Amino acid sequence: MTYARLIQNGSMFYAAYKDGSYYKIEGDLFDEHKVTDQKVEGDFKIAPPVTPSKIIALGVNYRNHAAELGEEIKVEPLLFMKPPTAVIAANEIIEIANPENRTDYEAELAVIIKKKCNRIKADEAESYILGYTCANDVTDRVLQKKDGQWIRAKGFDTYCPLGPHIVTNISPMGLRVQSILNGEVRQDSTTDKMINNVFDTVAFISNIMTLLPGDVIMTGTPEGIGPLSAGDEIEIRIQGVGSLVNRVVNREND
Amino acid sequence: MTYARLIQNGSMFYAAYKDGSYYKIEGDLFDEHKVTDQKVEGDFKIAPPVTPSKIIALGVNYRNHAAELGEEIKVEPLLFMKPPTAVIAANEIIEIANPENRTDYEAELAVIIKKKCNRIKADEAESYILGYTCANDVTDRVLQKKDGQWIRAKGFDTYCPLGPHIVTNISPMGLRVQSILNGEVRQDSTTDKMINNVFDTVAFISNIMTLLPGDVIMTGTPEGIGPLSAGDEIEIRIQGVGSLVNRVVNREND
Repeated sequence: MTYARLIQNGSMFYAAYKDGSYYKIEGDLFDEHKVTDQKVEGDFKIAPPVTPSKIIALGVNYRNHAAELGEEIKVEPLLFMKPPTAVIAANEIIEIANPENRTDYEAELAVIIKKKCNRIKADEAESYILGYTCANDVTDRVLQKKDGQWIRAKGFDTYCPLGPHIVTNISPMGLRVQSILNGEVRQDSTTDKMINNVFDTVAFISNIMTLLPGDVIMTGTPEGIGPLSAGDEIEIRIQGVGSLVNRVVNREND
Repeated sequence: MTYARLIQNGSMFYAAYKDGSYYKIEGDLFDEHKVTDQKVEGDFKIAPPVTPSKIIALGVNYRNHAAELGEEIKVEPLLFMKPPTAVIAANEIIEIANPENRTDYEAELAVIIKKKCNRIKADEAESYILGYTCANDVTDRVLQKKDGQWIRAKGFDTYCPLGPHIVTNISPMGLRVQSILNGEVRQDSTTDKMINNVFDTVAFISNIMTLLPGDVIMTGTPEGIGPLSAGDEIEIRIQGVGSLVNRVVNREND
């Protein structure tokens, strides 16, 4: 199934997406629920698919991206975090905080956690996952290198486009992951090229920290990263999961 | 004023602390509220002072600690994050995940944000701060070095003791910060020795990411860090702010 979180008349709710329309659901998307035949009519906006208590992301999880960054390949996942305040929805605007610094798109498959998850094994991971969405791990390359720690470079408000949909009935293996800048394909890989696959990654993280419903795991980006500029339109497209489009402006600095 | 968040009969609430007793408050601690004369009687537990939407922490923010780690002193704050799931309350147990790795205490003054805070100046910072509490930035030194990124090393469940109190009517300047391991003083410095002071730090972070009510900023640790072992009792004591005591065990690994 495919779901989205919508905003209409100031209230936010999940709906199922079928045949180009959204239908309200009854119950809790993270637990028991059913799709009604009540179509969402009138004006609405797509919200970020979740409000995560934390976003855990993987660095250098595709071999060819490790090569382009000159990073060594680590056997264990390399974790970092993005603040929840960085999240924006599909069609919202990426505001480049430091236009003088190279600021890149990074296409990523994002995992959305379904239920509290602590110290599980990889073969249990699938039952703790609600579904998948598209993510863009926007990164200031200058600050990333300068700080060493990546939080600032990847933590600015708007640097985590997420959505538009949550797809629940799909395997995360072998999915094509692309970024498309102003209509031109820039990244084009598949999730089979991950160094650590989705289930191993969820299990690994759950042995460090408890994962909670709505938490987001960003699974790393393949090779082909490149800079964004004001006026650009960047699309993250993941096979069977969706297409996340955002426009880019420069932040108005004082 | 001094406040704590308490748990009694399954419900969690803020109370004011006076003369050794807790008194219920009416209203919202982050907004309008008043202290009642209703004393909290019977059994209760101290909860973590907040449930932060994010914890932003500073690396190497005291000159002498930079020296002991062999890190260069950066002019700008060096940011990292700890996941909210790492938070435990005063008197809860630190579980060392990897007893074979050196795992250190780090005494820190923690700032608690009062209201939404975006792109402010240092001279505005005080009005966005609710108060201060004690924090222990527990750190696995082996994983910190191995990963380069510090999230895993500092992100294990229980690696962020916080509390017990929120003190609102205090200047964060010139406060003595100590860690006391099994009754022996190990760290002993003052917040005047910070490279970036509290107000500059809050302003700096707010220019990257929006801070929300209850968010926590950990302001770095002075020199004198050292390892924890099962059976230890570690106290973080900050002048005028309080005393945070936690015992240490080894996590039961499979």
